[in-house]
Amino acid sequence: MSEKISPLAKVSEKAKIGHGVAIGEFTVIYDNVILGNNVVVESHCVLGYKSPLSHNRPLVISDDSLIRSHCIFYEGSTFGRGLRTGHHAIVRENLSAGIELQIGTLCDFQGDSEIGDFVRTHSSVHIGKKAKIGNCVWIFPYTVLTNDPHPPSDLLTGVVVEDYAVIATMCVILPGVRLGTRSVVGAHSLVNRDVEPDTLVAGIPARKIGMASEVKMRDGSGRAYPWMRHFHRGYPAALLEKWKSEFGDTSQRKSG
Amino acid sequence: MSEKISPLAKVSEKAKIGHGVAIGEFTVIYDNVILGNNVVVESHCVLGYKSPLSHNRPLVISDDSLIRSHCIFYEGSTFGRGLRTGHHAIVRENLSAGIELQIGTLCDFQGDSEIGDFVRTHSSVHIGKKAKIGNCVWIFPYTVLTNDPHPPSDLLTGVVVEDYAVIATMCVILPGVRLGTRSVVGAHSLVNRDVEPDTLVAGIPARKIGMASEVKMRDGSGRAYPWMRHFHRGYPAALLEKWKSEFGDTSQRKSG
Amino acid sequence: MSEKISPLAKVSEKAKIGHGVAIGEFTVIYDNVILGNNVVVESHCVLGYKSPLSHNRPLVISDDSLIRSHCIFYEGSTFGRGLRTGHHAIVRENLSAGIELQIGTLCDFQGDSEIGDFVRTHSSVHIGKKAKIGNCVWIFPYTVLTNDPHPPSDLLTGVVVEDYAVIATMCVILPGVRLGTRSVVGAHSLVNRDVEPDTLVAGIPARKIGMASEVKMRDGSGRAYPWMRHFHRGYPAALLEKWKSEFGDTSQRKSG
Repeated sequence: MSEKISPLAKVSEKAKIGHGVAIGEFTVIYDNVILGNNVVVESHCVLGYKSPLSHNRPLVISDDSLIRSHCIFYEGSTFGRGLRTGHHAIVRENLSAGIELQIGTLCDFQGDSEIGDFVRTHSSVHIGKKAKIGNCVWIFPYTVLTNDPHPPSDLLTGVVVEDYAVIATMCVILPGVRLGTRSVVGAHSLVNRDVEPDTLVAGIPARKIGMASEVKMRDGSGRAYPWMRHFHRGYPAALLEKWKSEFGDTSQRKSG
Repeated sequence: MSEKISPLAKVSEKAKIGHGVAIGEFTVIYDNVILGNNVVVESHCVLGYKSPLSHNRPLVISDDSLIRSHCIFYEGSTFGRGLRTGHHAIVRENLSAGIELQIGTLCDFQGDSEIGDFVRTHSSVHIGKKAKIGNCVWIFPYTVLTNDPHPPSDLLTGVVVEDYAVIATMCVILPGVRLGTRSVVGAHSLVNRDVEPDTLVAGIPARKIGMASEVKMRDGSGRAYPWMRHFHRGYPAALLEKWKSEFGDTSQRKSG
Repeated sequence: MSEKISPLAKVSEKAKIGHGVAIGEFTVIYDNVILGNNVVVESHCVLGYKSPLSHNRPLVISDDSLIRSHCIFYEGSTFGRGLRTGHHAIVRENLSAGIELQIGTLCDFQGDSEIGDFVRTHSSVHIGKKAKIGNCVWIFPYTVLTNDPHPPSDLLTGVVVEDYAVIATMCVILPGVRLGTRSVVGAHSLVNRDVEPDTLVAGIPARKIGMASEVKMRDGSGRAYPWMRHFHRGYPAALLEKWKSEFGDTSQRKSG
């Protein structure tokens, strides 16, 4: 085993560990785990937590991922390259995610969901089962994607979030709702019906406020949406080039 | 000590440990703890956390309970048989709970409360001190049972939740409010007055929407409430028989 | 090293540790940490988590502080004497706090903020970057101080909370909003504009309900605000004397 694996970690000999993997103190890695190359798993984590709902499928963490301390990942979920998490996050079984997913601190992903590429969730986001999330979506703290139209029942109907959509803080998205591409949900909203593409909604229940593209940046630098025109931090250059050709670019301070 | 107790756990010799108990890696069990038979305490937990407010009463975890990883239980609380928790939950002192309580991931129970049998809380439920929760209650994520009518003050007045009541996600129940038996609170609501039995309320502040029994299942299979008629997952057969005789049974897909 | 430092903790030899410090099992203390005298760091914590955003500044925990289990503190933040935390809290880099700060269980402080003396946050409070919080402020569960007026953007504008203000449970304070001294925000509110001193607001969006001083205690003991007249638990005698001369004192049950 690598010298970057702490002697104070407990790592199953059955787990498949790539090159250059680092594992922190007091972390437990169970049998059914596949870690790609250059993955970092920090201290106090649990990976490959056993669940009968996983049908014995492994937890797959791909190359160049960073799992910060105190996170829990069940077996049965698969993540593309470049996953990054905050602390204290939990991800249950049967979730499938694309590349460069960011999971915030204290997030709670219930599994049985599909997530695209370059999705970012801030802290304390709760994603119920059966969610379908596209690419480049943003979700902010204390937002919940629900799934049960009349809880408790066995009738789970997930939320659909299309590419580039943004959900601000403390929102509840009711079961089966579809948020259209590039739509924006304002803070502290309850969304009980589908949201059209490029549309800004807010309120309890949420109403259409206008087109997202009508929102102006407070600093006078132009339009706030689509956000891909001005917010570039942490995205790869090739994606930024694609965005520029598709959406234009108003940024004075590229940081990509 | 049992061979199911990890050598990487730290277990006080003063703790009383039943037969067949399993304790995971990096878990700390303090002195004032009583674990029944066949209890499983997973990794990274703290049990019996010392508090002057407990008046030295022990933490009692009864037979056949499962405490998942990263949970913290103070001394001074007592749980009936078959407790099950998610991860990262915390339960403080002087809570008394009946059998088969389920505590979700990241829940925060402040103690000094009474909870009946078969209660289930989903993730991230916050139960303030002085709450009284009946039997077979359901509470969904990011819901808070408050207790201080004009914070901060020393005048704590707990919430009362009667049998079979359901509180959906992201609700605040104000201090001293009573939710009647089989009542339902819709998502993202603020409840500032008592709710009559069998009643559905929603909104900020919550208003009566109608009788809960008028809500129909989206799949056309009948009425959604009382939920005990169709939702049976994980409840014991004897309880389901009781429900059937009391509330009827419309389920096509019994899973009890 | 002190006999109060658990042999099951991992403490960097580069960390500066005061007299009488206690460190719990399975806690990791990294290099760039300064712990004052009589600090208690409980089990399963991480202190001095490395971040490039800290510019190599240390984590400073001053005398007589208590950090409960499962907390994570980044390097680059400084706390005055008498810090107390709940469990599972996380505090990121470049936060500067005064004396006797209380951080609740599961709180998430994003750093880059200023916090005065005697501030208390209950559980699950989220403080976004660029917040400025005065002295003796109270913040209750699931409340979020936001900072991005049109997320995601690089234009962060923090919330300002002045002395003695109270924010009840499940509130969202929008970016750049100033909450005046002794103002009160009711539960489950969305605050989108400045709040005048001594004013009570509530709702989505929040409207002025009246003067905070008009709120009466439910037990008939007088006015609820300013709360410093009747709520004294845990504050030092010198501060209570100051409050008494400034605000008067109606308490029948002093507990300071």
